[in-house]
Amino acid sequence: MNYKFSHKLDGLKPSAIREILKYSSKSDVIPFSAGNPPSEAFPINDIQKITNDILKNKPVAALQYGVSEGYEKLRNYLKEDLSNRFDINCDSDVIIVSGAQQAIDLVTRTFCNCGDVVICENPTFIGAITAFKSNNVNLVGVNLENNGVDVEKLEKAFKQNPNAKIFYTIPNFQNPTGITTSEEKRACIYNLAKKYGVIVLEDNPYGDLRFDDEDINPIKSLDDEGIVIYVGSFSKIFSPGLRVGYISANNKITQKLVILKQANDVHTNLLSQITVFDFLTKYDIKAHINKLKKLYKHKYDLMNNCINKYIKGYKLNYIKPKGGLFIWLELPESIDMLDFCNKAIKDHSVALIPGNVFYIGQNIKSNAFRANYSAPSDSQIECGIKIIGNMLK
Amino acid sequence: MNYKFSHKLDGLKPSAIREILKYSSKSDVIPFSAGNPPSEAFPINDIQKITNDILKNKPVAALQYGVSEGYEKLRNYLKEDLSNRFDINCDSDVIIVSGAQQAIDLVTRTFCNCGDVVICENPTFIGAITAFKSNNVNLVGVNLENNGVDVEKLEKAFKQNPNAKIFYTIPNFQNPTGITTSEEKRACIYNLAKKYGVIVLEDNPYGDLRFDDEDINPIKSLDDEGIVIYVGSFSKIFSPGLRVGYISANNKITQKLVILKQANDVHTNLLSQITVFDFLTKYDIKAHINKLKKLYKHKYDLMNNCINKYIKGYKLNYIKPKGGLFIWLELPESIDMLDFCNKAIKDHSVALIPGNVFYIGQNIKSNAFRANYSAPSDSQIECGIKIIGNMLK
Repeated sequence: MNYKFSHKLDGLKPSAIREILKYSSKSDVIPFSAGNPPSEAFPINDIQKITNDILKNKPVAALQYGVSEGYEKLRNYLKEDLSNRFDINCDSDVIIVSGAQQAIDLVTRTFCNCGDVVICENPTFIGAITAFKSNNVNLVGVNLENNGVDVEKLEKAFKQNPNAKIFYTIPNFQNPTGITTSEEKRACIYNLAKKYGVIVLEDNPYGDLRFDDEDINPIKSLDDEGIVIYVGSFSKIFSPGLRVGYISANNKITQKLVILKQANDVHTNLLSQITVFDFLTKYDIKAHINKLKKLYKHKYDLMNNCINKYIKGYKLNYIKPKGGLFIWLELPESIDMLDFCNKAIKDHSVALIPGNVFYIGQNIKSNAFRANYSAPSDSQIECGIKIIGNMLK
Repeated sequence: MNYKFSHKLDGLKPSAIREILKYSSKSDVIPFSAGNPPSEAFPINDIQKITNDILKNKPVAALQYGVSEGYEKLRNYLKEDLSNRFDINCDSDVIIVSGAQQAIDLVTRTFCNCGDVVICENPTFIGAITAFKSNNVNLVGVNLENNGVDVEKLEKAFKQNPNAKIFYTIPNFQNPTGITTSEEKRACIYNLAKKYGVIVLEDNPYGDLRFDDEDINPIKSLDDEGIVIYVGSFSKIFSPGLRVGYISANNKITQKLVILKQANDVHTNLLSQITVFDFLTKYDIKAHINKLKKLYKHKYDLMNNCINKYIKGYKLNYIKPKGGLFIWLELPESIDMLDFCNKAIKDHSVALIPGNVFYIGQNIKSNAFRANYSAPSDSQIECGIKIIGNMLK
């Protein structure tokens, strides 16, 4: 049969980095590509104890159908936690989703008709770009500065796109650039969104993984109009394989999200929802996150030192991240980055992601690559950066 | 803020049975409403042993990110199983999804643009109706006969709707009617779909729960053109809370489905995918299904006997199901069924679903209700049917 697929799929071309990703899964590759936590980041023993306990003492609660909103105890815990930590409230409800990716997809479906506009930081998270495109919306990218999105250009984008429905932002240790949006800019983004009637979709998967300094409150904490949708995830601080994330938003919005969630996958895996809840309430989540912060800070420092040591003769344009999982290196001169990353993986088994794939707009050239430091071992970090340095010579 | 939601949500009105469902969750209610397995249907000890084993011996495989296609060993097992049992092959691939509900949603998104038509058996599964509507497609219902869809009317619907992209069918023990599509009709459906270039979406959540007789091969087994998409689920034979289902389709289709799956939730919960695989390969799935069949046959027989005993003076129009979870009773005279079911829950704590909610088209009246026999206990079945009989007097 000659299939006629939906137009939604037109914008979703086979990825330019498919080749890189294909090679990346090999065991001898240095994994600077994905955002995977390392094996030692999973609280394996605790998860084993918890699931064992659940399947012994309340198995039916974990194995039976649940409600689309999510496990009520987990929802209540998160509501209180968000309220305590960030002063998030004002009729905000919390629903559980199957990872932050589902949150982005459901929010888009809730607000966007075909042809509506979503405004993004440019560059931004590939998964978000794919989710937006799969919903047939038009994407408008706004450049990033060292302290977050260029707010003048953001206002211009809001003005020029009266059918803009959503502004998507990752304020902490942005993927891929590692940039953190300053407190001032957060307020500015909120005020602009309010002025132009645009929903802010605030994605915060890495926020807990801050190396030093004080947390900056999320944009959601400023929200007295119900225009900010806050998305959290347990993928980076607990386990990505279990697919548990959450959305905090005004309850008029969550009511709509729940309808679409029900139509999409009924509810999120219950055993994992209860596992997350038990970990949060019966185990030491703070100690666990502190352990992760130390681990990632160490890996980041090592990668940073190796860059200074091995990538010589280049004045790299690189904003030092204050947390998260990624560094973003812009090389000073014109390099075909796709070609460079292809060579890195094929000739040297170093998996990097070329910067251009994170940009809205197909033909943007980028001198940058993204390197992840959470997945590789210490020796892989040293060895991989050394190889990159030699390639640049 | 005065939210402007997507038009997708326009067709998704608050459910007419919300009140019934609200009361249904109370513990003293007789649960004839949902399609939940009873507690004793879950292989709790096996699941406990399996998850324990996974988290002891291969925890990282279960807790790390996985690929969107699903756990490879489970995919390969299912490919072989479908090939052995049903002769399903012809370039068919298998991908894992977060329950059959996600399969329906993803298939719709893969083939349908706004305004395209999906043709359904009428009445049909509420979750499918919601998934279709949430994708802004137009639904056309085709009446059911005792041995499946009215194929003359189906052809007429195909002719009248040149933008029909999908025909959605549940050939075994259909939800809500319990009707099984005959072998002849399956062939007829396949040939019509081929003639009119429409994809058949074959949903088979209950197929394994056949009381007696031989299995009838799925429509997919006839498919030499790659026009049938077969959806299976572990919700009814293993656990709905773990949200694991699968899609078997031509690999040109699965390639598109995987892109949308990735944009939707990255991948299905890995711990549960591996748990399902281990159960299928290391435990006695056949014995488990035989146990379920016996249990449901017993409950069905009991409900059937109670109907004959307590609902007297009515010649009920009721097709005896050959498996699955539901019976569908059409009362011979005009009753306001929504009113009847509201009374049943509020005055008598018996939860039934009024037939009209399963129909395409808002204003269809129905003299039928759906009663589930898997969830209630034996004494609840007897007591509930007795109450319904008294209400009808």
